[in-house]
Amino acid sequence: MTTAPDLAPEATAWSAALHAEVQQFYAHQMQLLDLAEAQSWADTFTEDATFAVPTLPEPVRGRAGLAAATTRSHAELAAAGQRHRHFLGMLDVRPRPDGAVDVRSYAIVYVSDIGGASRVHRVCVCEDVLVRDADGGLKVSARTVTRDDLA
Amino acid sequence: MTTAPDLAPEATAWSAALHAEVQQFYAHQMQLLDLAEAQSWADTFTEDATFAVPTLPEPVRGRAGLAAATTRSHAELAAAGQRHRHFLGMLDVRPRPDGAVDVRSYAIVYVSDIGGASRVHRVCVCEDVLVRDADGGLKVSARTVTRDDLA
Amino acid sequence: MTTAPDLAPEATAWSAALHAEVQQFYAHQMQLLDLAEAQSWADTFTEDATFAVPTLPEPVRGRAGLAAATTRSHAELAAAGQRHRHFLGMLDVRPRPDGAVDVRSYAIVYVSDIGGASRVHRVCVCEDVLVRDADGGLKVSARTVTRDDLA
Repeated sequence: MTTAPDLAPEATAWSAALHAEVQQFYAHQMQLLDLAEAQSWADTFTEDATFAVPTLPEPVRGRAGLAAATTRSHAELAAAGQRHRHFLGMLDVRPRPDGAVDVRSYAIVYVSDIGGASRVHRVCVCEDVLVRDADGGLKVSARTVTRDDLA
Repeated sequence: MTTAPDLAPEATAWSAALHAEVQQFYAHQMQLLDLAEAQSWADTFTEDATFAVPTLPEPVRGRAGLAAATTRSHAELAAAGQRHRHFLGMLDVRPRPDGAVDVRSYAIVYVSDIGGASRVHRVCVCEDVLVRDADGGLKVSARTVTRDDLA
Repeated sequence: MTTAPDLAPEATAWSAALHAEVQQFYAHQMQLLDLAEAQSWADTFTEDATFAVPTLPEPVRGRAGLAAATTRSHAELAAAGQRHRHFLGMLDVRPRPDGAVDVRSYAIVYVSDIGGASRVHRVCVCEDVLVRDADGGLKVSARTVTRDDLA
């Protein structure tokens, strides 16, 4: 028999296995974003996910809008001769009784001028609600990002 | 039967479950600090914990002193119009035979001027001794922080 | 019976246990590097490992070359009155069918002037192939590092 950690979606207690799974989820998700794999990145959200940032009056809603927003951001970065890296960590993982998972984390965005220097761009707090999809994998159903440099 | 990873406090070998638990512990602890939840943060230390930093001649000792120090720091930050984020990672987790856990990690402190820019404030090495409390949870019994910018 | 996560080298599926093990591996490896433990650091690579960086025309090959390169780097840092910290995270861990493990991660290098300030030095992407040694531990057999500031 297998002794692999129990990843059954009905689990509602924190577990080491869930924590590692959430870390792997974010590593893959942020790498897709930085690779400009806009559609694959959008697919890590639920169909009707919301993404709220302080610089927009309303949350972006749904995968098409998410993919379009990231494609636009990458075009602007390329035009400016810059690269971004999204480095997320300090994951406070709190399963809900209904099987969803609240994750509050820190996300540092680094910017590099190609041919120049690298530096901190943004320091953010990311509050996500993760849910299980039909295949048992994790998706973001709601994300709220705040920035330390904004009041 | 459950196949959850063994988190029994008597374990003295490194385990994936312990590593994830330690990560969760730090994520929660640092978020409490940055949220200025001074008392809850102090409660992640043992009653008689020591906290040594290079800028003080003697370690801070005990929860009351820890809570007071962090409350003071947050008041100074607020007065300066700044926010700090403590981002800890690179956890080298080494259980001791007695059940305590040595953890050597890196801690980056970011500072943001509210209405301005974000940048690296401090690069630190954090050496902790973690112990189990009566409920089986982790507490810091001794912390020593060094800063890369100091001789 | 034990319920510890299965770390058997023949496993080819992603597991929470593998993810945590890889994180511990990198934490220890990067700390050895920053401590200038050049030989111990080189021993975290296979005998014939390759290490490719954008600033060299050919990869460094083998432990002796790796140890020599890091000893040289540390001497240069000491002469300049600086310290580096290698902070690696966002580990996208993908086991191969043959038991090797592909890991794509982000590595931020911080620099501190001793008596001065700390800042971001480099933002890198690190692509490793990890393999099991005779004792069942992980070693890097091939590393490719790219830098965001280079074209």
